[in-house]
Amino acid sequence: MAKAPVLTPQADDFPRWYQDLINKAELADNGPVRGTMVIRPYGYGLWERMQADMDARIKSVGAQNAYFPLFIPQSYLTREAEHVEGFAPELAVVTHGGGKELEEPIVVRPTSETIINEYFSKWVQSYRDLPLLINQWANVVRWELRPRLFLRTTEFLWQEGHTAHATQEDAREFASRIQHDVYRDFMENVLAMDTVAGRKTAKERFAGAINTLTLEGMMGDGKALQLGTSHELGQNFAKAFNTSYLSKEGNQEHVWQTSWGSTTRMIGALVMMHGDDNGLRVPPRLAHVQVVVLAIKDDEAVVAKVREVGDKLRAAGLRVVVDDRTDTPFGRRAVDWELKGVPVRVEIGPRDLAGGTAMLARRIPGGKEPVALDTLDTVLPKVLEEDQERLLQESRDRRLARTVDVSTIDEAAEAAATGWARIPWADLGPAGEAVLAEQGVSVRCLVAEDGSVPVADDAPGTLAVVARAY
Amino acid sequence: MAKAPVLTPQADDFPRWYQDLINKAELADNGPVRGTMVIRPYGYGLWERMQADMDARIKSVGAQNAYFPLFIPQSYLTREAEHVEGFAPELAVVTHGGGKELEEPIVVRPTSETIINEYFSKWVQSYRDLPLLINQWANVVRWELRPRLFLRTTEFLWQEGHTAHATQEDAREFASRIQHDVYRDFMENVLAMDTVAGRKTAKERFAGAINTLTLEGMMGDGKALQLGTSHELGQNFAKAFNTSYLSKEGNQEHVWQTSWGSTTRMIGALVMMHGDDNGLRVPPRLAHVQVVVLAIKDDEAVVAKVREVGDKLRAAGLRVVVDDRTDTPFGRRAVDWELKGVPVRVEIGPRDLAGGTAMLARRIPGGKEPVALDTLDTVLPKVLEEDQERLLQESRDRRLARTVDVSTIDEAAEAAATGWARIPWADLGPAGEAVLAEQGVSVRCLVAEDGSVPVADDAPGTLAVVARAY
Ligand SMILES: [Zn+2]
Ligand SMILES: [Zn+2]
Repeated sequence: MAKAPVLTPQADDFPRWYQDLINKAELADNGPVRGTMVIRPYGYGLWERMQADMDARIKSVGAQNAYFPLFIPQSYLTREAEHVEGFAPELAVVTHGGGKELEEPIVVRPTSETIINEYFSKWVQSYRDLPLLINQWANVVRWELRPRLFLRTTEFLWQEGHTAHATQEDAREFASRIQHDVYRDFMENVLAMDTVAGRKTAKERFAGAINTLTLEGMMGDGKALQLGTSHELGQNFAKAFNTSYLSKEGNQEHVWQTSWGSTTRMIGALVMMHGDDNGLRVPPRLAHVQVVVLAIKDDEAVVAKVREVGDKLRAAGLRVVVDDRTDTPFGRRAVDWELKGVPVRVEIGPRDLAGGTAMLARRIPGGKEPVALDTLDTVLPKVLEEDQERLLQESRDRRLARTVDVSTIDEAAEAAATGWARIPWADLGPAGEAVLAEQGVSVRCLVAEDGSVPVADDAPGTLAVVARAY
Repeated sequence: MAKAPVLTPQADDFPRWYQDLINKAELADNGPVRGTMVIRPYGYGLWERMQADMDARIKSVGAQNAYFPLFIPQSYLTREAEHVEGFAPELAVVTHGGGKELEEPIVVRPTSETIINEYFSKWVQSYRDLPLLINQWANVVRWELRPRLFLRTTEFLWQEGHTAHATQEDAREFASRIQHDVYRDFMENVLAMDTVAGRKTAKERFAGAINTLTLEGMMGDGKALQLGTSHELGQNFAKAFNTSYLSKEGNQEHVWQTSWGSTTRMIGALVMMHGDDNGLRVPPRLAHVQVVVLAIKDDEAVVAKVREVGDKLRAAGLRVVVDDRTDTPFGRRAVDWELKGVPVRVEIGPRDLAGGTAMLARRIPGGKEPVALDTLDTVLPKVLEEDQERLLQESRDRRLARTVDVSTIDEAAEAAATGWARIPWADLGPAGEAVLAEQGVSVRCLVAEDGSVPVADDAPGTLAVVARAY
């Protein structure tokens, strides 16, 4: 008799599989206020690793961290017309503080362009103060009517970068550098996620931006998920907040700005990009637990050996957990680590010990094979690098296999039922975009034929990537 | 003619000196919503270093990070009677979300005991699940009527730890371990802050705790500031949220809990403990900028040399900034780094270059002396360690010099005008505490004669440390 599956199979019901996995791998729980989220230690461990790696990349392009208040006066939001229109329906509003009704309602930040510009306008005086490159790690709140853990939550964690530059060219270059050197490089090389880099159509732009750059990933079911975005804000906020500087030539000029963000949604992407019917598969470079060393049964020599192996692998620079909780059945523990997607399990029982070997279970390709105990510290780093590459390759192969080039709107809509379509933007245009939108299909981004990011919507040869999206 | 002081001198007006320093050293600005705070990059850099060091300590005692929602249903707060009484006057309340009035108002977390217990009650089933040791880094909101940057702000950043244990003894031991191994050790060895470890009187306890352990530091003006606190919660929240477990013996038992926190207030403490009339003095082990290498004037060889020295010192493991902004006058830059409290400045001009030396300016003891360029990488690490010790010694000397042993309430009140007093708790008691409170003097903590933390308020020989406090 076949065992009941631990998770709803992906093929049966992908959204339910996702929900099952988040729950059983102990990544997150729903919070008590609708749409909020409790990030559990194993899920938060993924976020900590993402933060650490991303933070180093953000600093390496010259940005410094700071912290701006959670509470924004409601009047700030209204200063940039498109911005308030975009965010008004999603705001949480504080009306009482310290036991009294407030004179002016306060908005819980949905993003910080407005409050940050208020300070930039004080800090920036001269061209010597530019570029000003600021980042913050923070929580933000956007009221969510159809919440889904990690993907759409009323409160989420993110980093938001905000910069001011002397010229439009500087701002444009910096926005592009964030898209490529920070976000895309991180996603490919750490998260093992293939992405398509492009620009958003006017319809899909950030509220208040003149250009939005995006990275789009294809999930296991063929839908798209928007990952990091990097916006050129032009002078919209600079004019609303009078953020200006004295140029070298002695003129008062408004600054040119960017903002850019990436969120806990990347954890949801990780699940939907790399997960399978047995659970999550965590890319080794990201994993806060790369290796778990399991004692198969309660035997003194076995328990001593798993601890010794654990120490040895830690000394080899790996991130290791030793699982010697032999009061819990081995099978249950193995399934658990499989659900959590730990890249490699080293399983040791009395028989292995006698033979000087361990069972090596690889989560990413699957399968088990015996390995000599004394080669583990040299074998495992190679295995982990191999499996890191494998995940990226799988995600790229899937996107290529499930993306088709089409020439009509009907074909595009049809392709979007199972994957992505590429169609010349000149043939689709805003009118075609509106037709697709009625069928739940959106233009994820515009790309050039050679895969680069077009400098304008109407650049010759621009293709629209269309898909259903999360 | 004497130069005008950069800051209001401490002796003239200590609170104003503090405000001047926070502003001119670019640590923080007031936020637009009363009581909120913008932490500027240099101030946030201090916080990042505090976080990194503290986080490692927290993990080393076995706690794991997680994240719980910002938004708490108002009804949760009311479940523990003392807790709601303590926090109700300080709450910020969200009444509207997504464009609609909410059915139940939402509280912006002032602390997370309630929401965390809601989840602990689901996660803890058996004695095998204990101890459960959780920490989170987060922002919290407590409406503040008399705000002061870093010391009392409506929103602040902190870590809050929350644990559940099988027995009262386990919880008690853990709360004490946090006070000593995490907080006190960090404050002494990284922040170079002398502190007194004690327990709070019933009047000063955390709302909902059965015991509050505290660390109190003496500021430059002789007042006290409460730093990290660690609370035994007994079974108060466990009963309110029914957090219970099946014991080894097969009985259903409520857990015993602790909670503990430390905040961005530590930055304020750093300023008031180590600052002087020239600005901040940052302890070298904490400093995100330990050394600044300054080019005195715009000279090609000088600029090349400061960069070379910067690289060499970085290679020696120091955290270095190279200041070659020779379009700003040298004097202004030097004052600026002095205000920011960078422990060591290495100043290089054409004359130094010719002699193969640099001027070494030490911020902590003060003074300048020439040092051979080729010895900098061996000299500076020693200088920095010396100055780290010196700061701690200064802070300890000040506390000892300004603490007096007294035997009457009048003497205690008098001593509190300029420093701290110690008085037998048996002579003071809650009645004497109330008398002192009328004069703005509080019992900061109870300590044993040998400096250890008494196990109970009425332990024989217990002394009360009384002071004015921030
Ligand atoms: Zn203007
Ligand atoms: Zn109960």
